[in-house]
Amino acid sequence: MKTYNVAIMGATGAVGQQMKEQLEKRNFPINQIVFLASSRSAGQKIEFKGETYTVQEAKPESFEGIDIALFSAGGSISEKFAPEAVKRGAVVIDNTSAFRMDKEVPLVVPEVNPADIAQHKGIIANPNCSTIQMVCALQPLKEKFGLNKIVVSTYQAVSGAGINAINELKDQAADFDNAPNADAKVLPVKSAERHYPIAFNAIPQIDQFTENGYTFEEMKMINETKKIMHDDTLSVAATCVRLPVVTGHSESVYIELEAAPTLDEVKQAIAEAPGVELMDDPSNQVYPMPLMAAGLDEVFVGRIRQDLDNPRGIHLWVVSDNLIKGASLNSVQIAESMIEQGIV
Amino acid sequence: MKTYNVAIMGATGAVGQQMKEQLEKRNFPINQIVFLASSRSAGQKIEFKGETYTVQEAKPESFEGIDIALFSAGGSISEKFAPEAVKRGAVVIDNTSAFRMDKEVPLVVPEVNPADIAQHKGIIANPNCSTIQMVCALQPLKEKFGLNKIVVSTYQAVSGAGINAINELKDQAADFDNAPNADAKVLPVKSAERHYPIAFNAIPQIDQFTENGYTFEEMKMINETKKIMHDDTLSVAATCVRLPVVTGHSESVYIELEAAPTLDEVKQAIAEAPGVELMDDPSNQVYPMPLMAAGLDEVFVGRIRQDLDNPRGIHLWVVSDNLIKGASLNSVQIAESMIEQGIV
Repeated sequence: MKTYNVAIMGATGAVGQQMKEQLEKRNFPINQIVFLASSRSAGQKIEFKGETYTVQEAKPESFEGIDIALFSAGGSISEKFAPEAVKRGAVVIDNTSAFRMDKEVPLVVPEVNPADIAQHKGIIANPNCSTIQMVCALQPLKEKFGLNKIVVSTYQAVSGAGINAINELKDQAADFDNAPNADAKVLPVKSAERHYPIAFNAIPQIDQFTENGYTFEEMKMINETKKIMHDDTLSVAATCVRLPVVTGHSESVYIELEAAPTLDEVKQAIAEAPGVELMDDPSNQVYPMPLMAAGLDEVFVGRIRQDLDNPRGIHLWVVSDNLIKGASLNSVQIAESMIEQGIV
Repeated sequence: MKTYNVAIMGATGAVGQQMKEQLEKRNFPINQIVFLASSRSAGQKIEFKGETYTVQEAKPESFEGIDIALFSAGGSISEKFAPEAVKRGAVVIDNTSAFRMDKEVPLVVPEVNPADIAQHKGIIANPNCSTIQMVCALQPLKEKFGLNKIVVSTYQAVSGAGINAINELKDQAADFDNAPNADAKVLPVKSAERHYPIAFNAIPQIDQFTENGYTFEEMKMINETKKIMHDDTLSVAATCVRLPVVTGHSESVYIELEAAPTLDEVKQAIAEAPGVELMDDPSNQVYPMPLMAAGLDEVFVGRIRQDLDNPRGIHLWVVSDNLIKGASLNSVQIAESMIEQGIV
């Protein structure tokens, strides 16, 4: 069996750690592995399959001999180092937003558009976490019944904003009576002017605002969904909200289909979809929740209902671990799909 | 100035307490006030306008001489005592779901359908908290631009499930590392078979499930909105989700209008609406949040955006205190409107 030289760029971050764990857990065919980070994190030790590795400072020449480089160290790092890695013959799978909407760069969820991988020119982009779980749930419905419109409201976890956001939530949650006046420095956006407490709150801002009043997070969901699903005419609208949840994004999704399937037909399509688990038994109070989805690979779908007025309208509740299927797992699956397709 | 004999039924509960505070704060024209509750709570002391009152056990004869009775002690109590109060000449303003969909009972939000009050036959129903704030925000748009369709996803606070739910959230939130295994006895529904932790979670169930897969909470929003807005052809869909928020419901609302107004026209209609406050300045990160709305009277609306595909589509984020405008304040406003209209 062919094995590969793999680099993880941003190895000490939350997603980098998860990428390492996915490579171990899925027994990815590795020849050599290299853990890269900024100079600040270089020197840290990482355990991988029983051996100890030292994190190295990323330099252009770090990518010599690398076949596959998994990037998750921020957009500016990707912009700087991804071309250097490609120049040295690596395929970069990039988890930042740096290249996602680049026409030359495939944006891939392996359950949805694996064939796009073959179009790569060195870089393959991993979509935004909230986009990935939604398209996994909707692709089987699109294929069977046609998809015209998506209106999604998200319920997003703080871990998408990094370890500092998790610590901020933890500190604030411990001081119940002081909630409105809790110290806030990280959320909604670390670099923004104003910060708001997240514990016992809901913040309708993820990422900065764009000119049209939507946030970048909302525009990512809108634009990435159209690109992944290859449908510029698909109507997509998103409202993205941060919650006091550590890990696990939830989404309330309303869709309008071309056809008017029965509820059972919709549920069956979801149940048969790869990477998706139907979790929908209201009479036994069975539905997905972030606290239960955290740490698991699947995209969980429940609360599936027909719209009461539009026979082509369906409502769903979609939950997945934003660090796993929303980031690390999807990146590793792109690498696996490349191998399966003989592209690397 | 005419004054009235007022009873609060369920005076020791969270909403009953807020009703008392609203009567004080708004200087409601009271001649005599009586605080009623079950035998379990009878004997407790309540301060009102500097005087101390003793809570009395509710009996049919408690309503002798009462002009206006504000009920918030649960549906079965309303079913038992509201007819007794009416028989004795009182007008009952009922905050439970017992009579809301009764064709003989007006369901009133004073900013939306005050004229319905005149149709009462002794009982006037106060709508569900999540319905009230939504119709306050949408009525001005319906009046100016016509309203065809509503798709709402809610982000609801635990105080709607009572003091035990608040205490459960507080206890669970204090034990961050144990979140998935936290002890849960109250939510999502106290009498239900299964209970789930609410801290660091999102539970897509409020109230029990109905036959069609929607919860009663969702069906309340759907049916009550049509009744209050006098439009059976209005398309309404709801997904209701409980969050680790103490007080303040938020709603992500997508609507389709008859007309295609500009964004400024929509914002102006919201800004001019009674009881509603426009809070929408993305460039300064100004939008409503539950932690800031708690304790305030208004319905706050922000994140107003035009749909990117449908010129008749609008997205809004609506936040209000579920115990105030969602319950106690609306009940007291119904009483005030009765007086203004000379109905009592």
